[in-house]
Amino acid sequence: MRFSSLTQLAAACGDVPAGDAAAAVAVAARDETLTKPAGSLGRLEEAVAWLARWQGRSPPRLERVDILVFAGNHGITAQGVSAYPASVTVQMVANFAAGGAAINQLARIADAQLRVLPLSLDQPTADFTAASAMSEQEFLAAVDIGFEAVTPGADLVCLGEMGIGNTTAAAALAAALFGGGGERWAGRGTGVDDAGLARKRAVIDRALARHAPSLADPLACAATFGGRELAAILGATLAARHRRIPVLLDGFVCTAAAAPLAKLHAGALDHAMAAHVSAEAGHRRLLEELGLRPLLDLDMRLGEGSGAAVAVLLLRAALACHLGMATFAQAGVAGKSPD
Amino acid sequence: MRFSSLTQLAAACGDVPAGDAAAAVAVAARDETLTKPAGSLGRLEEAVAWLARWQGRSPPRLERVDILVFAGNHGITAQGVSAYPASVTVQMVANFAAGGAAINQLARIADAQLRVLPLSLDQPTADFTAASAMSEQEFLAAVDIGFEAVTPGADLVCLGEMGIGNTTAAAALAAALFGGGGERWAGRGTGVDDAGLARKRAVIDRALARHAPSLADPLACAATFGGRELAAILGATLAARHRRIPVLLDGFVCTAAAAPLAKLHAGALDHAMAAHVSAEAGHRRLLEELGLRPLLDLDMRLGEGSGAAVAVLLLRAALACHLGMATFAQAGVAGKSPD
Repeated sequence: MRFSSLTQLAAACGDVPAGDAAAAVAVAARDETLTKPAGSLGRLEEAVAWLARWQGRSPPRLERVDILVFAGNHGITAQGVSAYPASVTVQMVANFAAGGAAINQLARIADAQLRVLPLSLDQPTADFTAASAMSEQEFLAAVDIGFEAVTPGADLVCLGEMGIGNTTAAAALAAALFGGGGERWAGRGTGVDDAGLARKRAVIDRALARHAPSLADPLACAATFGGRELAAILGATLAARHRRIPVLLDGFVCTAAAAPLAKLHAGALDHAMAAHVSAEAGHRRLLEELGLRPLLDLDMRLGEGSGAAVAVLLLRAALACHLGMATFAQAGVAGKSPD
Repeated sequence: MRFSSLTQLAAACGDVPAGDAAAAVAVAARDETLTKPAGSLGRLEEAVAWLARWQGRSPPRLERVDILVFAGNHGITAQGVSAYPASVTVQMVANFAAGGAAINQLARIADAQLRVLPLSLDQPTADFTAASAMSEQEFLAAVDIGFEAVTPGADLVCLGEMGIGNTTAAAALAAALFGGGGERWAGRGTGVDDAGLARKRAVIDRALARHAPSLADPLACAATFGGRELAAILGATLAARHRRIPVLLDGFVCTAAAAPLAKLHAGALDHAMAAHVSAEAGHRRLLEELGLRPLLDLDMRLGEGSGAAVAVLLLRAALACHLGMATFAQAGVAGKSPD
């Protein structure tokens, strides 16, 4: 395995490459010459500069876009925290393989390559109200799978997940990292009723109390509360940084999974953009904690990388403008009047 | 001409067809069966139901998407309200024809047909601080061009505009319709400095005072303050309703142009969606006045239909999910656990 201990992984998280400022500057310089008022494409312009910075290339490109969806099962489902039975995780993985899920349609329309990586679905993590969800070795193995799943040649990686019970894991992890309890972080996930939401909050509070000694170490938190798919997302996010590939994070679970990186090292998520803010209660709060501004706000709460795939469409639109527009000089359009 | 007087036009604005509730219900019913938690695609699901309601067809389709960009020139530019010279309007129309503008790139990526309609660019409207921008006949002629530009076979129409000075016209029109003066409605447009913004506000306040007797009639306001491209957008929005074609409105100018319809008849813009909220100061306020919730919020402020074209990508993504996803039964995925 790439990382043999949490300590070694923590060291790799702290030692990440900076972006390419010159590439971002080159994008901005070209943008100033294009036939539009300066800055008038707003976040589309920012997105192109961001792609350039983290690809280390101006102009950036989006020839190969990968969507990686990691799936895991969660022992915490025994506590009645989800509206769906745990068996749905494996059924949805089959649905992904058959092309019937939302992410299949979205990957096609975004011209992205979808890969689904099921992680030991027959071995759910432990119920984290009773024990750590994963041992250190189980956690590191899942991180490793995520790390290796990032193909060096990709121009952009979208991360997503599937796992019945994983909004409870994500909420517990967010609470462990940023403070506050179940009340602050738990939402309705796939659609629990009021009683289910109350159970979910209580489960999180109980788990936080039980694992209080681990809360100071972000990676220990990830092993204690997260699932294998969350660990893999952490590994993939880290690998993408080392391989100069910008990342689109999907929703609440995905953002929580990557959050330990930001706790370990300020700027560790600078190569990651929040594709959207989901309707899941804790997501907006978590993005605020991380200083991430989402591109989209569409009340989505599906996971699967669905919000990230939709955001790819915006990046493609942004890049098409940057590459295809005429300059003021080429088009014979007058510039701004002297003030 | 289709409309020979403001009175006749007002009557047509008040007599618009309702949407097809059954088509929207059919979309929602299918959505309940698809392999995702109910409602978890959020506004994407709402958008498909909206398309169905206003096309009168379930499922809806997006085979032919038209982008209509109307261009006009404005006498108000004599007051120094724009950062760019008025000559840029005709230069940008040439840039559209040559394929060099942002909207050309966005139309291509949205798989939409772009048509640009320049409206008497060699005859700017009158400076509305001195007179009505247009005579009744000039206004009705421009409305007519917009009305006729909507092709009956289109599945969706995106409306956009180009016209140096037209954020001043739009701000004056919004002020006339919804109250408040230049302070409330004027923004920086293509990028005026503080002195330019102050001039713009003063110009609007002066014009509102001068034309006070016309302010009670929304169509008279449109003729008095708006430009030809705004009038055409009003006409196109009305035509689309009569022809069962949903409309994506672009930014501040486009929304202001259509706003008189809503003042004349509640629900007259129900077939129109706000593609985005622009960075132009008055747009968010105007959308609130109209009860329109934008799909996108990307700090764009270019016009040209650019925000609407980007929103087409979201509608295509939404429709792809609706049409392509498997049902729970087809995929063998278990439904929600009994509560």
